[in-house]
Amino acid sequence: MNRQELISEIRKKKSFLCVGLDPDLEKIPAHLKSSDDPIFEFNKAIIDATHEFCVAYKPNSAFYEAHGLKGWASLEKTISYLNKNYPDHFTIADAKRGDIGNTSSMYAKAFLQQMNFDSITVAPYMGSDSVKPFLEIKNKWVILLALTSNSGALDFQTEELKNSADKLFERVLRKSLEWGTEENMMYVVGATKAEMLKEIRKIIPAHFLLVPGVGAQGGSLEEVCKYGMNTDIGLLVNASRSILYAGNGTDFAEKAKEEAYTLQQEMKSYLN
Amino acid sequence: MNRQELISEIRKKKSFLCVGLDPDLEKIPAHLKSSDDPIFEFNKAIIDATHEFCVAYKPNSAFYEAHGLKGWASLEKTISYLNKNYPDHFTIADAKRGDIGNTSSMYAKAFLQQMNFDSITVAPYMGSDSVKPFLEIKNKWVILLALTSNSGALDFQTEELKNSADKLFERVLRKSLEWGTEENMMYVVGATKAEMLKEIRKIIPAHFLLVPGVGAQGGSLEEVCKYGMNTDIGLLVNASRSILYAGNGTDFAEKAKEEAYTLQQEMKSYLN
Repeated sequence: MNRQELISEIRKKKSFLCVGLDPDLEKIPAHLKSSDDPIFEFNKAIIDATHEFCVAYKPNSAFYEAHGLKGWASLEKTISYLNKNYPDHFTIADAKRGDIGNTSSMYAKAFLQQMNFDSITVAPYMGSDSVKPFLEIKNKWVILLALTSNSGALDFQTEELKNSADKLFERVLRKSLEWGTEENMMYVVGATKAEMLKEIRKIIPAHFLLVPGVGAQGGSLEEVCKYGMNTDIGLLVNASRSILYAGNGTDFAEKAKEEAYTLQQEMKSYLN
Repeated sequence: MNRQELISEIRKKKSFLCVGLDPDLEKIPAHLKSSDDPIFEFNKAIIDATHEFCVAYKPNSAFYEAHGLKGWASLEKTISYLNKNYPDHFTIADAKRGDIGNTSSMYAKAFLQQMNFDSITVAPYMGSDSVKPFLEIKNKWVILLALTSNSGALDFQTEELKNSADKLFERVLRKSLEWGTEENMMYVVGATKAEMLKEIRKIIPAHFLLVPGVGAQGGSLEEVCKYGMNTDIGLLVNASRSILYAGNGTDFAEKAKEEAYTLQQEMKSYLN
């Protein structure tokens, strides 16, 4: 999916919601646990219930890898299901990969070609040759970690640098502009750091941002929109736990739908 | 495997060689390709041929993920084979993971518990709460990226910081000393930056270092030993491609063995 198509979907649905598919076996409803593939059945129900109100889905690879082969099979089934039934939704492999060139090429093959995700989240620590192999795949996206939503973000990302006025995450933004464009790169910026979006928009006015941290992590959607929205909207705001575990009975999908609808309605109000 | 056991193995074998298991289907010998699981058959032959001369094995997760479910199965078979047949070898999941706390816990479960690797490589960009969940698993190790062997290492890792005399990778070393000890943390330091090991040893005199970049990437083993070795040796030097693809005929395992032996002999000379 290209940038223009994503913007059209957002305007059509009046939503820039991304639903994070982080299925935790300890939290999914009891009645699903007897099925052959509880994780996939859970995801399928969540997707079918929420698709009208969101424009993107983001499975987090850790939640699948934790179950070994069976988990990897659930991930493959989930992305196949999305690609087949909801091709107008943008898909994000939240895998936070990044390694030397020949290794990043293998990760790109795994997520962007084999599984055919639209995009993958990538960690910047190893620099240019760890990111570029992902950008070599046509019509796909890198979503680079910039300023994350967790407390550990303050350990290194906000460290001030000596030879510029930049903090580390600002240097990541600026340097990565040499590698890709707003047509194939986005950035992760946590909602818990919304006030910093103002400065970030000075460096990357046009790029889309993937914003986690609304909901369970406590970030404010209103502030994210106030400081982060641009003329093309430029935001994908993720919610995972607040939607997935809105209910844990047989009506969990209905509860998830209500939660997604509530978020979409709030988003609609900021789009007007 | 704990620190003392690892040191004993190194002294016994007079080797601190780690063999990187990065099986590339385009490079493995033609006669293996007709087997049910060419990647596992290749790894098994490499392991059986090299085990006398090395103390560690390091499968790189990307090379398995690139083949989807089948690749993940090959990875699980490889680590099971190692744990069953060579329990005295230290095992490293070269996965370069790292995410917010609840997600890092899932990765820890996948690699350190389910697959039972001794250790996992972790990316530091997201800070303390992305690393600590791995350290919570008893008798297991985090191998944190500090100064990597690739050219992109110069994009961010060597950036000088404003409020200290540290470069970013030095800040990573210093900060992470608050999270773990030399009993459960090691660091990745590339052989291509061997001269910097002198400064690194001032910050972490006692920790083990995992050193990639000898062989195909051009780093010097002699320099790594000169600047990086401590009284407990403190080094695991990895070679992947130079061993795995020393030959590509039916005698590939024999060629790999010769290459591992050559490296072990050189290591032995530095241990004396």
